[in-house]
Amino acid sequence: MPSELRKDPLSQRWVIIAADRAKRPGDFEIDEAPAKPEFDPFLPGNEDKTPPEIAAYRKHGTAPNQPGWRVRVIPNRFPALQIEGALNKKGEGIYDRMQGVGAHEVIIDAPQCVRSISELSDAQVQEMLWMYRDRLVDLSRDKRLKYGMIYKNVGEAAGASLYHTHSQLIVTPIIPRTLTQKLEACEEFYDYRGRCLICDMVAQEAETKSRVVTDTGLFLSFQPYAPRTPFETWIVPKNHESRYEDIGPQGCEELGALLRRTIERLEKGLGPVAYNYMFFTSPFDAHGQPHFHWHIEIIPRITRLAGFEWGTGFYINPVPPEDAAEFLRGIKL
Amino acid sequence: MPSELRKDPLSQRWVIIAADRAKRPGDFEIDEAPAKPEFDPFLPGNEDKTPPEIAAYRKHGTAPNQPGWRVRVIPNRFPALQIEGALNKKGEGIYDRMQGVGAHEVIIDAPQCVRSISELSDAQVQEMLWMYRDRLVDLSRDKRLKYGMIYKNVGEAAGASLYHTHSQLIVTPIIPRTLTQKLEACEEFYDYRGRCLICDMVAQEAETKSRVVTDTGLFLSFQPYAPRTPFETWIVPKNHESRYEDIGPQGCEELGALLRRTIERLEKGLGPVAYNYMFFTSPFDAHGQPHFHWHIEIIPRITRLAGFEWGTGFYINPVPPEDAAEFLRGIKL
Repeated sequence: MPSELRKDPLSQRWVIIAADRAKRPGDFEIDEAPAKPEFDPFLPGNEDKTPPEIAAYRKHGTAPNQPGWRVRVIPNRFPALQIEGALNKKGEGIYDRMQGVGAHEVIIDAPQCVRSISELSDAQVQEMLWMYRDRLVDLSRDKRLKYGMIYKNVGEAAGASLYHTHSQLIVTPIIPRTLTQKLEACEEFYDYRGRCLICDMVAQEAETKSRVVTDTGLFLSFQPYAPRTPFETWIVPKNHESRYEDIGPQGCEELGALLRRTIERLEKGLGPVAYNYMFFTSPFDAHGQPHFHWHIEIIPRITRLAGFEWGTGFYINPVPPEDAAEFLRGIKL
Repeated sequence: MPSELRKDPLSQRWVIIAADRAKRPGDFEIDEAPAKPEFDPFLPGNEDKTPPEIAAYRKHGTAPNQPGWRVRVIPNRFPALQIEGALNKKGEGIYDRMQGVGAHEVIIDAPQCVRSISELSDAQVQEMLWMYRDRLVDLSRDKRLKYGMIYKNVGEAAGASLYHTHSQLIVTPIIPRTLTQKLEACEEFYDYRGRCLICDMVAQEAETKSRVVTDTGLFLSFQPYAPRTPFETWIVPKNHESRYEDIGPQGCEELGALLRRTIERLEKGLGPVAYNYMFFTSPFDAHGQPHFHWHIEIIPRITRLAGFEWGTGFYINPVPPEDAAEFLRGIKL
């Protein structure tokens, strides 16, 4: 079968679906199930081994930085950005720079020393999601800051340096380029058709069905039309919502169960796969945008970026998303 | 030291220089020197183990697909794009696709089974560079094709699957996004200032000197202002030249020696590092563009992309390029 070029309408990136290089799900190199660490700084009782907590959901009557928490947020010990200081934007000849003002927090998803949220209960994943929301709402009050990115690294190949399940939040003083590109594509589509691009995408996916993995009623999980890696999965609310922070308790409940099962499905199908996920929401100062729709991207890290991807921004993917969706739908949970 | 945000004027991407996370050159995980393979399909005598050759520089009187070659070009056995067929552009609802028409070639840099071009002679690297030029010139005659990207993957972390030193060429039916972004930035700068952005960059680097590694007269090798990874290195012709294909024998001679030494410097400093390099030249149908200037990017693969980089398009780099340049200048060759 000759390969096919497909364009992601949201990021405008092209992907080469090269099914001739075909790989079956069992063909990917997946790390052996990694061993638990000897010392775990994120375990209850080790609170003094981390910086003091910023927030936590804890048992009534327990004190900060003591056991009794269910979800706990701390500053990153090696922050890429720091909350103190002014931006001091300046030029250096043709170049631009500014101080690294922002926030870089670690969300300890749960007290147990497990590798992945698939090993937590639905209720624990729901509390983790609620904490994401709380932290975004809190940090969005700082007028120097423009955008909050929630993400997760699981496994060495995905850039994780700690085993115990955790998420991260980086808040930046400028809107990241990846988001700007998505916003521009959505604005252009909206100007032209008067509809939200991602609403149209969800409608087309739900109708076509070939790339859908799960439809929960409020959310759709599917393989995108132009996935960068095999088994890349998106989760999108089916109704138009521009900000993740506006999720209500019911949405959070349904999303928690779906997100946990989506990861479990990938791990049952592929083994203890390394993965990243990222939440894309509106910039802090944008409310109720008719053209932007929040969503989650999950990227299994089972292919390597090579010179071609670095040089062109194209990706080569040996597994068509229709095949990946069929495989994932077939996994018994 | 607080971190600093720096913007690359060419790609418009931001990088966080987080020197607080500082790592010294010895702190990076570099693979053990990888072992030579038991069987090497690229060795002279094994020509029948590869697809038939497209081009070669060979000893006078030797036949194609026989030993006697110095540089040999073959089709990629698992091509991402293929030369046959029409583009058949079409829509699928909101999505766009086309046939994977293009070319995907492998350039066997030299007959010896060595891992990296640092182990070749200057003359061999010069012939490899001349072959890059020949292939680009040849493929640019196909009117369906828009752009040729020369790149190299060395080491497993950089996506290489074969040990024997080789390069690749992918020719695409659309101009890749990475190049489009660079072209747009250069056009905007040219419209505003009437000068080439990259000429200005070279002039500023040559004057500042803090990021320069080597100045050969015709070429400058330097650490870019906003490098994505520690020790990212660019090589740029000092005079304005828009197309790599227009390089003459003298440029090729000087570039071959510089490229070989630049890689040798990285390997002596860091160990047998995995790396990618990419050549950025003008699109096939653009000649003598006053605003675009060809260049080479070399990326040592010693940091991992995590969720933050995937989600934002920002990079976190723990080594300021000024420190990296000082370190590299100090390596004795």
